[in-house]
Amino acid sequence: MLENLKKYRIVLASNSPRRRELMSGLGIAYAVETLPDVDESYPVSLCGEEIPLFISRKKAEAYLSSIQPNELIITADTIVWLDGRVYGKPKDAAQACAMLRELSGKTHQVITGVTLATVAFRKSFAATTHVTFSILEEDEINYYVERYEPFDKAGAYGVQEWIGFIGVTKIEGSFYNVMGLPIQRLYKELSRL
Amino acid sequence: MLENLKKYRIVLASNSPRRRELMSGLGIAYAVETLPDVDESYPVSLCGEEIPLFISRKKAEAYLSSIQPNELIITADTIVWLDGRVYGKPKDAAQACAMLRELSGKTHQVITGVTLATVAFRKSFAATTHVTFSILEEDEINYYVERYEPFDKAGAYGVQEWIGFIGVTKIEGSFYNVMGLPIQRLYKELSRL
Repeated sequence: MLENLKKYRIVLASNSPRRRELMSGLGIAYAVETLPDVDESYPVSLCGEEIPLFISRKKAEAYLSSIQPNELIITADTIVWLDGRVYGKPKDAAQACAMLRELSGKTHQVITGVTLATVAFRKSFAATTHVTFSILEEDEINYYVERYEPFDKAGAYGVQEWIGFIGVTKIEGSFYNVMGLPIQRLYKELSRL
Repeated sequence: MLENLKKYRIVLASNSPRRRELMSGLGIAYAVETLPDVDESYPVSLCGEEIPLFISRKKAEAYLSSIQPNELIITADTIVWLDGRVYGKPKDAAQACAMLRELSGKTHQVITGVTLATVAFRKSFAATTHVTFSILEEDEINYYVERYEPFDKAGAYGVQEWIGFIGVTKIEGSFYNVMGLPIQRLYKELSRL
């Protein structure tokens, strides 16, 4: 499948093990290359999906100076969005617990922006999934944060971890988007190249 | 967590590796025991969630003669339901392809019935998730069936496999239910015992 991609060397520019797992599931050859210290700041005027779209484009731009003519770069950024506010990666256990207390009993949005880039073109898209948490007990939040240390995860949780098993009552949209990559949409976009 | 279960020896009565993976994610001790040849037939008058509820109860009953006073048995059955029809496990590649052609471009329901049983009580519940497939190309269906041989899977697909990555555009409900066990609901029910 995706025979049309044979002409490209595909590079996933992401440190996320979940994104690598999802890319591997597509059954196509790809390499992982990451640049250190890509600036992930964004204008405060941005809202919702504009934010991860902006950051995924910025990540792609960081590669453009060194890209080969046959290379296709894939970058992505995922945010957790609730009541007009971005929940990023928590700095410590106290911040992780505070984030989970905010998400408890509510429906938030997980939004991933993806950019596909070669020397010749750039294409970006975003996907949104609605995730509903049950009311999380204080001891459940503490148990999860202590054992799983979700400091590399937007919103302080991994849907494929214990808290996702016991706390997520419902999702609406792509599940894999919540893991960090809307893989069905990515497949469709890649098949159209 | 789930300290209330300490008094039980928990037995998951299922051959499904996906269900075992999900149970393991709860972080509680359990054993796997399965009986050969449990009759999975059901009255033709049953409809929708009545079917997996009936079968999960039947599976639990098969254990009741040999159950110990401290044992808690968990049984489950999952069906794929579309337009008033059950899609079971396909017998061969031709049947698997035919099922996927039926699911293509439509929203179907995945329904799991779960029964918790001890010598003293029985409790059953069902969970439904709506799963939407993109329009699947014939070569995508053939590629998947040849490589993944989904003959042990209701509806001829595994959502955690290639076809789930490239073909599922959207779900509504519990993702883990589509894998075979509504793990968040199970956790809630177990915590109430």
